[in-house]
Amino acid sequence: MGRITVSRRITKVVVGESERRVEDVLAVEEPLEIRLGGKPLSVTMRTPGHDVELAAGFLLSEGIIRDGEDFRGAIHCGGPGTGGQANTYNVLDVTLTAGVPLPLTDISRSFYTTSSCGVCGKASIEAIQTISRFDVSADPVQLDADRLATFPDRLRERQVVFAKTGGLHAAGLFDAVTGALLVVREDVGRHNAVDKVIGWATLNDRLPLKGTVLQVSGRASFELVQKAVMAGIPVLAAVSAPSSLAVELAESSGLTLVGFMRGSSLNIYARPDRVRSAPTAG
Amino acid sequence: MGRITVSRRITKVVVGESERRVEDVLAVEEPLEIRLGGKPLSVTMRTPGHDVELAAGFLLSEGIIRDGEDFRGAIHCGGPGTGGQANTYNVLDVTLTAGVPLPLTDISRSFYTTSSCGVCGKASIEAIQTISRFDVSADPVQLDADRLATFPDRLRERQVVFAKTGGLHAAGLFDAVTGALLVVREDVGRHNAVDKVIGWATLNDRLPLKGTVLQVSGRASFELVQKAVMAGIPVLAAVSAPSSLAVELAESSGLTLVGFMRGSSLNIYARPDRVRSAPTAG
Repeated sequence: MGRITVSRRITKVVVGESERRVEDVLAVEEPLEIRLGGKPLSVTMRTPGHDVELAAGFLLSEGIIRDGEDFRGAIHCGGPGTGGQANTYNVLDVTLTAGVPLPLTDISRSFYTTSSCGVCGKASIEAIQTISRFDVSADPVQLDADRLATFPDRLRERQVVFAKTGGLHAAGLFDAVTGALLVVREDVGRHNAVDKVIGWATLNDRLPLKGTVLQVSGRASFELVQKAVMAGIPVLAAVSAPSSLAVELAESSGLTLVGFMRGSSLNIYARPDRVRSAPTAG
Repeated sequence: MGRITVSRRITKVVVGESERRVEDVLAVEEPLEIRLGGKPLSVTMRTPGHDVELAAGFLLSEGIIRDGEDFRGAIHCGGPGTGGQANTYNVLDVTLTAGVPLPLTDISRSFYTTSSCGVCGKASIEAIQTISRFDVSADPVQLDADRLATFPDRLRERQVVFAKTGGLHAAGLFDAVTGALLVVREDVGRHNAVDKVIGWATLNDRLPLKGTVLQVSGRASFELVQKAVMAGIPVLAAVSAPSSLAVELAESSGLTLVGFMRGSSLNIYARPDRVRSAPTAG
């Protein structure tokens, strides 16, 4: 497996007081090339580890696979222990199940490219949105605001690498009813952390993720809302602020979007009906 | 021009105390499609405004243009006031100066795609690095640690939109010697904020940006170091932590990389020789 942290000597300065060489721990960032049937599809800068989940989550988010059944397998290119240069685990070749159509064109960023002139607002959402086969608007889940408000701290407690490096985003999946934390993933890229969580669910045959809350450590962008909708997650909660387009997509998709979580205070930007703000009994 | 913030009614919950509908201000996120000579090149989710700078900075970072001379002009597709649907300013068509070669293939993410198997460490940097025509390692600039330590607060003071929305990254360019703040740009995407700063310099014929410090509000990734090097910026300072690959590229490029800036304390990850940590006279 790739390294998740790396140690390095740095210069620590306290202005006017001291300057010394100390050992520091950094979050590892390395490129992962995802291939489909041997053909390069996308390169992302990511924290090594959980690469197969990352690939599965990315493919699910982009609408290339529909579930774990469509994902036949993945191998790190070159295979372990190949002679000469050691396998660096930075190329992952994914095989889709027979019959699953390959994407026609290069995806990655250009996946969002449209030929229409003047995309904006409603139109832009339609133009750049990947169509989900799950209808999160119909998810009847209800959750308690007091429990929801504890999720950022519970996610933080599990951010093992962040605690060492201060350099990682995290995403965690909670059961909205029991409050159980199902999985946590960390990555230098916020989208990657979410892809790893969704990929974990995809490969463990848990789609759609009804009755769950996706808690993220940072802000909520359009793309994070899109990823949640693609996986059938009805609630996205972000520690920081959402963007305008994140709110628009959440509203049009029927996803509950929570942000600015500070202690017992939180904002609900879309579908507030799922959140019970009265204190729970006991 | 596009909107930078948008107002929206949200539900504000203080657990066990109150739940009320209030007016909130969100940072606008919308797609910008950058075209080259009419052909779609890339789509980025960005905060509207300074789109021409964003395009120029992106093209410079990717090595497609070398300076402002190579950038002939840009128009928002459709032009202002076209009949029917209003121009939404989300498609920008760039014209390069005659003789500047167009990129051969699709860039954006797949720009980083390599055909080699097992990219990693030194090899990966070479594989994904864009070659700069400026040698930042030779920049003799010296700067005082006490002045450097003030840059995060000075950047924050100028983050007009962040103050309202809490949802934006910022990048600012400082003169290392005088401490003057030359330009500040904000965006929902950290890379976009940096591209806007570099694009501003490109279009104002200020390349290479010798003797400057690029201060960013968040973490330092590989791509931010690469952008700084492409613009000839010798010092990148980030409020939060850098990644391993950011440090490696800084070291191999001779860029001074500063991070974890907290009050009077800061870490120097590469080329500490440019920073004078003794208190300055007066």
